[in-house]
Amino acid sequence: MTTHTIKAFGTQAAEKDLEPLTIERREIQPKDIEIDIYYCGVCHSDLHTARNDWGGSIYPVVPGHEIVGKVKNVGAEVKRHKVGDLVAVGCMVDSCRACHSCEQDLEQFCETGFTGTYNGKDKYISGQRTYGGYSESIIVDEHFVLKLPENLDMAAAAPLLCAGITTWSPLKHWNITENSKVAVVGLGGLGHMAIKLAKGLGAEVSLFSRTPGKTQDAIALGADHVIISTDDDAMKEVANKFDLIIDTVPYEHDINPYMNTLTLDGTLVLVGLIGEFENNAVSTRPMISKRRSVAGSLIGGIKETQEMLDFCGEKNIVSDIEIINIQDINDAYERMLKSDVKYRFVIDMKSLKN
Amino acid sequence: MTTHTIKAFGTQAAEKDLEPLTIERREIQPKDIEIDIYYCGVCHSDLHTARNDWGGSIYPVVPGHEIVGKVKNVGAEVKRHKVGDLVAVGCMVDSCRACHSCEQDLEQFCETGFTGTYNGKDKYISGQRTYGGYSESIIVDEHFVLKLPENLDMAAAAPLLCAGITTWSPLKHWNITENSKVAVVGLGGLGHMAIKLAKGLGAEVSLFSRTPGKTQDAIALGADHVIISTDDDAMKEVANKFDLIIDTVPYEHDINPYMNTLTLDGTLVLVGLIGEFENNAVSTRPMISKRRSVAGSLIGGIKETQEMLDFCGEKNIVSDIEIINIQDINDAYERMLKSDVKYRFVIDMKSLKN
Repeated sequence: MTTHTIKAFGTQAAEKDLEPLTIERREIQPKDIEIDIYYCGVCHSDLHTARNDWGGSIYPVVPGHEIVGKVKNVGAEVKRHKVGDLVAVGCMVDSCRACHSCEQDLEQFCETGFTGTYNGKDKYISGQRTYGGYSESIIVDEHFVLKLPENLDMAAAAPLLCAGITTWSPLKHWNITENSKVAVVGLGGLGHMAIKLAKGLGAEVSLFSRTPGKTQDAIALGADHVIISTDDDAMKEVANKFDLIIDTVPYEHDINPYMNTLTLDGTLVLVGLIGEFENNAVSTRPMISKRRSVAGSLIGGIKETQEMLDFCGEKNIVSDIEIINIQDINDAYERMLKSDVKYRFVIDMKSLKN
Repeated sequence: MTTHTIKAFGTQAAEKDLEPLTIERREIQPKDIEIDIYYCGVCHSDLHTARNDWGGSIYPVVPGHEIVGKVKNVGAEVKRHKVGDLVAVGCMVDSCRACHSCEQDLEQFCETGFTGTYNGKDKYISGQRTYGGYSESIIVDEHFVLKLPENLDMAAAAPLLCAGITTWSPLKHWNITENSKVAVVGLGGLGHMAIKLAKGLGAEVSLFSRTPGKTQDAIALGADHVIISTDDDAMKEVANKFDLIIDTVPYEHDINPYMNTLTLDGTLVLVGLIGEFENNAVSTRPMISKRRSVAGSLIGGIKETQEMLDFCGEKNIVSDIEIINIQDINDAYERMLKSDVKYRFVIDMKSLKN
């Protein structure tokens, strides 16, 4: 496979800062789209992969899977997009496209594993990992390239590609409508999108917060109620209330107090915590007493992601963001670890040219 | 409320054996049915309530909620059953019958709490608890009295009222059909009914067992496969296989190895464990990676219980039992604690007359 080199920003080792790199991209294939990257959102996964927090990182790592930009070139057989289109790429750049999951538009559950936008096994360049959106451009099979509604603020739309779809998919899978009551745990990148999207679907939306400090922000984002989860009386008031709880907290925490706030047949869905409840006992009593469930959910399929983007276009829903230059990424990671961002960093990729 | 006395068998304190008692039953009310009790199954809950293992027992305790017998008398307004009918009573003898759950035939999730067949708050006799089926007769509102198919072995049908419905309800709720693959964890009273009922519904049924010793029994009960859960290769072979796992184990255990054997969107439903995973971490990774769920389920509603009994009548499904006299109940409890019963004790209530 012939390749060409482009500018990117990444890291050569877990303990090193991110820095300018030169990486190789494949030449455009018949079904490929070459995208000039305008903005790239900064996800917690970027940081964890750069630092090998989950293991399995192969260096160099070039993070970034909330990519928006413009089509620069298309391969000879491309039908879905044309040069100049506003497009987006999320967490996946390929999958087997033949298994039962892929056939059901659930590429995120591809039975052979989808190809991650970064640190995935590159199918085209032998021995190389995929490199993400902290780069000038990216070449992706058209099936994995989304159409970005023209009316959306492009930078603020970038986080829809991961934070957005990760919260949208469970809202749709568990049939949230204008008759539903939804609660959100955690007010970060995912949590603030969960509020906006659930509200967009017409649901009554509550935020669980450990302190009253987030009340104004949550209301401003569209939440109808904020419930202080350390206030036993407040928690009792919402017993048996919620059809769905979207729990976005990315570290171990006690889910038991939330379980009793689910209605009969309600579900608490974990989208942030990839790990174990090592130190927090999970009680089965609230599950058995009202046939409640705890479930997990993982991003969303390509068709579903397009539906989410179209919905956001109609409702003019985007993320609340703070734009940074790529040179600020190491500081941004430190601030993310302190939850010091409302609510998502987005890199202006023009800065890579500096 | 006027009352009359009858013979029963129960206990006066947590640390005491069960012994003959005289208890009071209300006089028959217009919608009541008086049932001569022929057989009563012995459930683990009987033992736990007699010994106050869960707290909340008020003495005397007269256990028994797998009751079959014959209608002896009916109140003036009774429509559902007539004198001489074979009938059954399960875990509930009343509920509010007005809440959303009751209106949906989900009395087991009554918002004010259903009235348990024993150790429940008696609505008729002030200050008294309800007394269960270890007794000559019982008086129950017709709504909570089930019709027992005439063709079933009466003694062997008794455990359908708790072990049967507890496993039937999740099979139906999670839409198990002849295209489904079901696994069962635990081969006791509940587990052996789960195998029979899932097989009756046409599903492919597997038993998870820690040792090969139960293989023959499970196959004899109708299981298609037995998977030795301590054999890593065997567990890998069934990765992503099961639509539903019915976990009947009544004590804390590690559910993580089973989670990976669920298919996309599969559910592990806990029906036996009322407690906490104190010492076993629950991993969220298998949930997130395939949108799997962990859920609880509690007996079943009255309508669903009747459907289960009718189904068992059609398919001639009953429990495998060992018949005992009421005088053997204390020994039976000790044997249950050692899992020394295939698979349910049923008391021949004629013995109470001795």
